[in-house]
Amino acid sequence: MLTTDRIKALDLTIGVVGLGYVGLPTALGFHDAGFRVHGLDVSERVISELQAGRNPGDDPTFDNAIPNDERWTVTTEPKIVIPECDVILVTVPTPVQENKRPDLRFIQAAGETIFDHIDRGKRPVVVLESTVYPGVTREIWSPLIESRGLSEGVDLDLAYCPERFVPGDPNHGVRQVPRVVGATDTDIVKALAELYSHLTEGTVTPVSSIEVAEAAKVVENVQRDLNIALVNELALIFPEIGLDVEEVLTAAATKWNFHRYTPGIGVGGHCIPVDPYYLIQKAHSAGAPVELITSAREVNATMPKQVATRIIRQTSDLGRSPSSLKILLLGWSYKPGIADARETPAESLANELVEQGCEIYVWDPHIQAEHRLDGPYIWVDQPETSKPDVVILCTAHEEILGLDWTALRKSSDLGFLYDGRRVLDVEILHDAGWITGAVGRP
Amino acid sequence: MLTTDRIKALDLTIGVVGLGYVGLPTALGFHDAGFRVHGLDVSERVISELQAGRNPGDDPTFDNAIPNDERWTVTTEPKIVIPECDVILVTVPTPVQENKRPDLRFIQAAGETIFDHIDRGKRPVVVLESTVYPGVTREIWSPLIESRGLSEGVDLDLAYCPERFVPGDPNHGVRQVPRVVGATDTDIVKALAELYSHLTEGTVTPVSSIEVAEAAKVVENVQRDLNIALVNELALIFPEIGLDVEEVLTAAATKWNFHRYTPGIGVGGHCIPVDPYYLIQKAHSAGAPVELITSAREVNATMPKQVATRIIRQTSDLGRSPSSLKILLLGWSYKPGIADARETPAESLANELVEQGCEIYVWDPHIQAEHRLDGPYIWVDQPETSKPDVVILCTAHEEILGLDWTALRKSSDLGFLYDGRRVLDVEILHDAGWITGAVGRP
Repeated sequence: MLTTDRIKALDLTIGVVGLGYVGLPTALGFHDAGFRVHGLDVSERVISELQAGRNPGDDPTFDNAIPNDERWTVTTEPKIVIPECDVILVTVPTPVQENKRPDLRFIQAAGETIFDHIDRGKRPVVVLESTVYPGVTREIWSPLIESRGLSEGVDLDLAYCPERFVPGDPNHGVRQVPRVVGATDTDIVKALAELYSHLTEGTVTPVSSIEVAEAAKVVENVQRDLNIALVNELALIFPEIGLDVEEVLTAAATKWNFHRYTPGIGVGGHCIPVDPYYLIQKAHSAGAPVELITSAREVNATMPKQVATRIIRQTSDLGRSPSSLKILLLGWSYKPGIADARETPAESLANELVEQGCEIYVWDPHIQAEHRLDGPYIWVDQPETSKPDVVILCTAHEEILGLDWTALRKSSDLGFLYDGRRVLDVEILHDAGWITGAVGRP
Repeated sequence: MLTTDRIKALDLTIGVVGLGYVGLPTALGFHDAGFRVHGLDVSERVISELQAGRNPGDDPTFDNAIPNDERWTVTTEPKIVIPECDVILVTVPTPVQENKRPDLRFIQAAGETIFDHIDRGKRPVVVLESTVYPGVTREIWSPLIESRGLSEGVDLDLAYCPERFVPGDPNHGVRQVPRVVGATDTDIVKALAELYSHLTEGTVTPVSSIEVAEAAKVVENVQRDLNIALVNELALIFPEIGLDVEEVLTAAATKWNFHRYTPGIGVGGHCIPVDPYYLIQKAHSAGAPVELITSAREVNATMPKQVATRIIRQTSDLGRSPSSLKILLLGWSYKPGIADARETPAESLANELVEQGCEIYVWDPHIQAEHRLDGPYIWVDQPETSKPDVVILCTAHEEILGLDWTALRKSSDLGFLYDGRRVLDVEILHDAGWITGAVGRP
């Protein structure tokens, strides 16, 4: 059983199920903190890379960080590691399906694997870290536990501790971010708070239940979605009355309690475009009103379409029909500096423009050839080679901000450049001969 | 004409039109800064109080602050003061009408008075400080100027500098808050930034137009309305799934970029429940989408009704029909520590409960007898005298937080207490014998 004495003595085996962008840094973090770590993943590729001491993911932080000692075991075989674990952290993906309903199959599968193999004599704690709506941990796992003849609070305990780290941000990695943890048992939640304090220098806050911790994580992302949706809605309003939304927001931000967000072509990633649907589904099934959260999601989800419409309108004013346009998207991943393209708004924007008859080229120096999405897009290795009529900045990668705009302009016939992230200096672009447009600018 | 030399020499007469909760502190602030100040108000009462050296308003800060020297003149007569002014600040109310459309009549009337009396030889600057939607300053005033044969940029200049101060908050008074200022003329905007720097220790940010400054102010309040609406929507969702919204928000607030707001019975005051309608109207007339902002406004506007429904449901569970209930509202002003009841949600809540057949009593130690709204409510001078079945905390005045809950409980038959602001300690109330409910609690 998990006790603070064993945690203090580092005498604990921690399992991590799912060694992706959350699980791997978490496993490495607990290993660095001195614990025995057992990593499990269904991917043969991930495990063979790790066993060879190589980083299986995209984040270069971990290139030389894979341990090779007796406190580190990685495998695809649950029976080798799960029975030895005192604590098992589950860091599997929680995407949404095409119909925007949560896809909980990875949590289900992880639960089955774990509950089939635990050593009930150890009374391990199984901690879900994946983002879910309130109630999921027990709705999905409790029936699996019962059907195996196990008892919560006797043979094992359940807990929830949402991951919060920011990929690519060294100030908000697993070793820095504050955590929230909820469990059924009050001793367990205290012990887990102690355990996570070995992982992170941030605060670890115990809450009164698993469901409160689940809800807290969803609310964080819902609030972010809402505030981004507001600046996006303002970016659609202000140009219609001749104002640049960015100048307005910068002025408003001189007020002490204003929250500054920047409008753009839409939001991406594994959290913000996904988590609100989790809460929306839960609210619907509880019969509670959820119009505001739904409305915010709708604004952000339709931004790529709104941007496409404006680009088509502006190029049409320049005498060009959509079907005559070669359009180069600069950047494909959902945020700067990383290769992650989950739910990227660039894809929705590309699809909108393809529907309008445009020919789409994509340049993203972060996305390796094998990860480039198949579709009606032509991936290029140099922006100039596409000879684009229209260039759209979708991701503010440093490589993109540092482009030679004069050279790129020479390769372009029409010379229309649209800043989808409000990061470019209009004067420099005009000097280089570009006609420009931008999200939220008249 | 306004020049930085004259500002630095304090050789300037500043008019303030409208000596209410914004105008009076502004006039006093510029007087304290060393300028000659001419105050104008249509209210005989306000002017005679001021002329007698007495504070005409509710804020005790100004009780002993009314000047009596040659740099201070107050009057109801525009012809006495307007011709002498170099700068004229307009601080009149901008409420919404019953149909939620902006009521701009005070701005119109102030403009007429001013443009009828200015000395065009002085080329004064007329600065609107009242909150409006983008475009209002010139839409309302430019025709008035033209019809009097005056020319902007020749006989006078227009500018906009939104007031931002927080009534009752010593850290965010007119001498502290950062300002934003926009004008048509670039020299004028620079000079005004210099002038306002004498008033406030906060930053003064010039922007490129009057309209940007107008938009910035509206956006500040729209964002606040939206974030409060989110926690209010969550306060309707979480109790339905057995969670206390306050515990969830407190947990979420351990994340570095979370914005903590507290749900309640609704929002009041002269800004947040009003300004979004200004932007909504402007967006509508420009054909721009404004669903999100509208949805947020709707959530906050319906909170009193949502709260009334929940109180009726909970007291019904206790076996009491609405028509049998004597309900005491604790607090009537829209926020703690002040006597201001504009757009207070307490009024909407009271009206909802009256419609349900309840008998409504109100106790608010800040609101003087002469300012108590007529209506189907009975104002009491001591909470106990109403012998209420139900008590609803509407405003977290200190006098209310410090009530003797045991004594109040003795006066109550049913003993149901609803915390509409999430400020009370449930355990203390239960010990005192109350059955409790609260916004966002299951």
